[in-house]
This record gives sequence, structure tokens and C-alpha cells, in this order.
Amino acid sequence: MKTMKPTDPWVCFQSAEQPKRAILRKSRVCVSPNDRGFMFADGVYEVVRSYQGRLFLLPKHLKRLRQSLRSARIAFKGVNAIGALAMELLRRNRLLACDATVYLQITRGVYPRRHAFPPRTVIPTFYMEANRFEPYRVDMTRGISVVTVPDLRWSRCDIKSLALLGNVLARQEAVDRGAFEAIFVRDGLVTEGTRTNVFGVRKGRLVTHPRGGSILGGTTRDVIIQLCRRLRIPVLESGIRKAGLRDMDELFLAGTTVEVMPIVRVDGRRVGTGKPGPITRSLQQAFQTESGAR
Amino acid sequence: MKTMKPTDPWVCFQSAEQPKRAILRKSRVCVSPNDRGFMFADGVYEVVRSYQGRLFLLPKHLKRLRQSLRSARIAFKGVNAIGALAMELLRRNRLLACDATVYLQITRGVYPRRHAFPPRTVIPTFYMEANRFEPYRVDMTRGISVVTVPDLRWSRCDIKSLALLGNVLARQEAVDRGAFEAIFVRDGLVTEGTRTNVFGVRKGRLVTHPRGGSILGGTTRDVIIQLCRRLRIPVLESGIRKAGLRDMDELFLAGTTVEVMPIVRVDGRRVGTGKPGPITRSLQQAFQTESGAR
Repeated sequence: MKTMKPTDPWVCFQSAEQPKRAILRKSRVCVSPNDRGFMFADGVYEVVRSYQGRLFLLPKHLKRLRQSLRSARIAFKGVNAIGALAMELLRRNRLLACDATVYLQITRGVYPRRHAFPPRTVIPTFYMEANRFEPYRVDMTRGISVVTVPDLRWSRCDIKSLALLGNVLARQEAVDRGAFEAIFVRDGLVTEGTRTNVFGVRKGRLVTHPRGGSILGGTTRDVIIQLCRRLRIPVLESGIRKAGLRDMDELFLAGTTVEVMPIVRVDGRRVGTGKPGPITRSLQQAFQTESGAR
Repeated sequence: MKTMKPTDPWVCFQSAEQPKRAILRKSRVCVSPNDRGFMFADGVYEVVRSYQGRLFLLPKHLKRLRQSLRSARIAFKGVNAIGALAMELLRRNRLLACDATVYLQITRGVYPRRHAFPPRTVIPTFYMEANRFEPYRVDMTRGISVVTVPDLRWSRCDIKSLALLGNVLARQEAVDRGAFEAIFVRDGLVTEGTRTNVFGVRKGRLVTHPRGGSILGGTTRDVIIQLCRRLRIPVLESGIRKAGLRDMDELFLAGTTVEVMPIVRVDGRRVGTGKPGPITRSLQQAFQTESGAR
């Protein structure tokens, strides 16, 4: 038996050997080595941000989760229960009065290894944890640097799947090169970051890669496009050419954890004035109002 | 505590919470939900075939494993010990007198979720299991059918990584369409199958996709190319055009489990005479001699 650590958080788990979804201590969670999440990246996930106990954009995250499940052909029945369970995790882990993230993943379940789907009787594995999150306040004020990397990933980046090795390697390359994030370039066009979408501003107009198989349609991305509509900032959904990055007046990342994050350097070269630009800052403010972040 | 099932096989496991590599009952293996294999497909694997207690092509598999680890930048120290451990698993599970497969995987270890690598102090997770394997004797005599599917996978298929969702979905499509295997087509060229390499025969010459990021350089593939040299069959390493599949005299799959598997139908259309061809059969025989299969 494992000992329970003092800092052993509450998580939610359901799998073949624990068929009733339960909230339990993390140290009690036992993933089978034959879980298809462990052997095949055969699963999908979501990360939801919580601001002082409010789950932000939960319906959008659950909608995307359903899309990912459908694309991956995983028959998981419990999506409707996720919101209440997430709130329960925030409560039990005393995360209601701070910023937090809720991470959840669903895999095709536990079965002896073979590529084809297991029988329909195999239940999907569900895992969810909640963690305190420290917003990147300094970075959001000063702006961050990014590096460009070739986009070697598959053509179904619209599925929020566990097959993240390409993202991991790119993210580490960014760390090695002293940058906050790596942004992918495919066929000369910037697609997205390893866990973010990328936006450019050129002559008062926003530019970002269109939805499709090359990017994950981010929930934060959608909010920003809505905010632009409200602020009467035109948005062009079109890939930014890598060669055109230097001509951008502003650049920023958007994502659940980074919110609206100004980019001030790309591959060591200054973006615009080298400081967060006015449209980025106004979108940052509008986003903070929207999210209710303090 | 879990109960030990009567059929609970011996496996080998090493991870943060079990830092000494040990042979233990499978039901005792507890993978952490924060294992990077579970959350990021951040790991690599191998499947080795055992014929009556002899591990076939073990040095080639370990060489490729080292390449995969290097490409994925995973610092795992125990590759040299794998052969002896695999033999021990075969012995303890009474698999020395039959055909078996040894599956092993190595992940970047257990760490709170973040894309970038964990600190160097985090030890990789190692898991290995051995299973009785029933060769596809009837299929190998009669030949099997395949379907073509678009190759949506990433551009580092040369890394034998856990990021297999694309392979899983393609393999299931084959099952749904009543076929034995799905073969991928990228830019009009056949790359490989979901767990196999693809060979064609045209006018006495073998054709197969060259090594590179689009395919996994199979160990069986290498043996076949060597056998061709011995049998004076010319080999052209070049992608087979999907449109050219109908002109092939013979087609076959090669892989650790399928060995040399004649393809007699592609997308419902007959290959050659609709029966396993002479070059495929001679390679099958030569391969069986090489592997010592009975």
C-alpha cells in the first residue's frame, strides 16, 4: 500500500479496475500499463482555467472535448458531469479563492495491447486533477520571446489528443534557446504554438491561422476573435508567413494559461517597437474583464 | 491491495515510485497519472519476437531503441540489460517453448504536467511484458487484404514513439472495412502500414519506400533487403505510387509479427493473380529459415 503524503491532492479517476468514477487521493490512482493512454496516446484532454472558483469558458471546453472524442471515436458518456466534478476538486483542494487549472483526460480504456479498438464493453479511462496556477503577470506586462520551429506534427491538430511528443520536443527546444514558447512553421506559414495560438497585428488588423487540421481551435482564440468584433478590429484568418513575421507591428500568443501574451522577440529579432503593442494591450485588458481575472 | 489473479503474468517495471527495476506481477504495476507516457505520448517502444525462446533480431531492436531514445532525447541507461530481463520474463511466464512477443516501452518519467522536459533527476519509466503469440499461419498461406488510407501522421515516423493515435485510427478503419491492415498514402505514395512496412514486386524487382521521416525503418524490412541481396533480387528503395498499386505483380507486408505477409487485395481489387506470388513465397521461406520459425 502506498503511504498518503501530506500534500496528496484530491483527483477524479475512473477506469476498468475502478469502474465507478470517484474522487480519491492522487497517490491512490493506479493507471494500468495496458491503458491505451499509456501505450498508444489513444485519448484526448482539456485544460480549463479557474478564476477564483469560476470555471472560465467551461461550455466551450466541453464542446471541444465532445468534438475530440467524436473525432477519436471514443464513446465516453460522462461529459455532462465534468463541471460539477471539477468544482468539487477545486473545493476539496482549497482552490476556490485562487487561480487554478483543471486538467482532464479520457482514454479508450484498458485492454491487452493491439492497435485496433478494444471491444465496446471496455470503458474509457477518465482522470482529472486541479492545480493552483500562478499567472504569468511579469511576462504579460513585459512580453516574451518565441522561437520558430518546423511543424512536423500530424494533420489532425484539431483533435486535442494525447499524441503530444512533437509539442514536447518543440517546447523543450524553446527552453533550450531561452524562449517562452516555440511557434510552428509549416510550408512557410506560422500555424500555432506548442500550447497556444499565434496572432499578428499589421496595420490595425489581426491575422491568425484559420481553423482546420493544422491548428487546435483554441477557446481563448475564439474569445479574442469575438472581442475584436466588439472592439471593431478587423480579423483576417490566414497564416502569417514566416518571412512576414518581421513586418508585423505586434504579435501575441493566446491560450488558456497564457491568456493574451505579448511577443516582443521572434528568433532573437525585435517585434515592432520591442514592447507590447497597443492592440495587444487593449485585447489583454478586454480579456481580463471578460475572464474576471483580478 | 489488489488480488493476484491466477493468470497474472510477470512483467518488468521501473518508475519514480519503483526506482529499482523489478520483475513483478502485472497487477502490481501502478503507472502514475503524471507519467509522461500517459499524458504526452512522451516515450518510445519496441516489440521483439521470440521463437521458442530465442529473441529474434534483438541487437537490431536495441539499436533502433537507442536511436529512438536519442531522437526523443530520453536519457535511459538500461538498454544493455533488456535482453537478459526479456529472457527472464519468457522463462517465468513459461514462454520458452512457444512463439511470443516481448513488448517494452520507456517514457520520460513521472513529473507534474508541463510540456518541457522534467529535471534530469527524474528517472525514465520502463515497462516490459511478454505474451504468447499465435502466428498468422492461415493468412500467411492465403494472403490478406489491405485498404489505403491518407497518411496524416507526423514527419518523424522514424522514431518508434508512443504517439500512435493516427495508427490506431487507421488500423480500426481497416478492421471496419474488413481488411487485415491499412496502408498509408502520402502525396500519392505508399509509405507503410500501421505496424508494417510495405513491399511491391514489379518485373522481378522489389520496391519499398526509402528510410526517412515518413516510415519506421523496420527490422524485418532490413532482413528482407538482405535476403534479396542473397537471392539476387534487385531492390529499389522508392515509394510505390498509389495509382501504380494495380500494376504490381506482387505485394506484401513485412513486420515483427506479420513476418512476410502476402497481400492479395488492395481496396477490394485483386493483386496480380490474386494469390501469393512466387517472390513473396520465396522470401517467406527464406525468412522462416532465418528466424528459425517452425
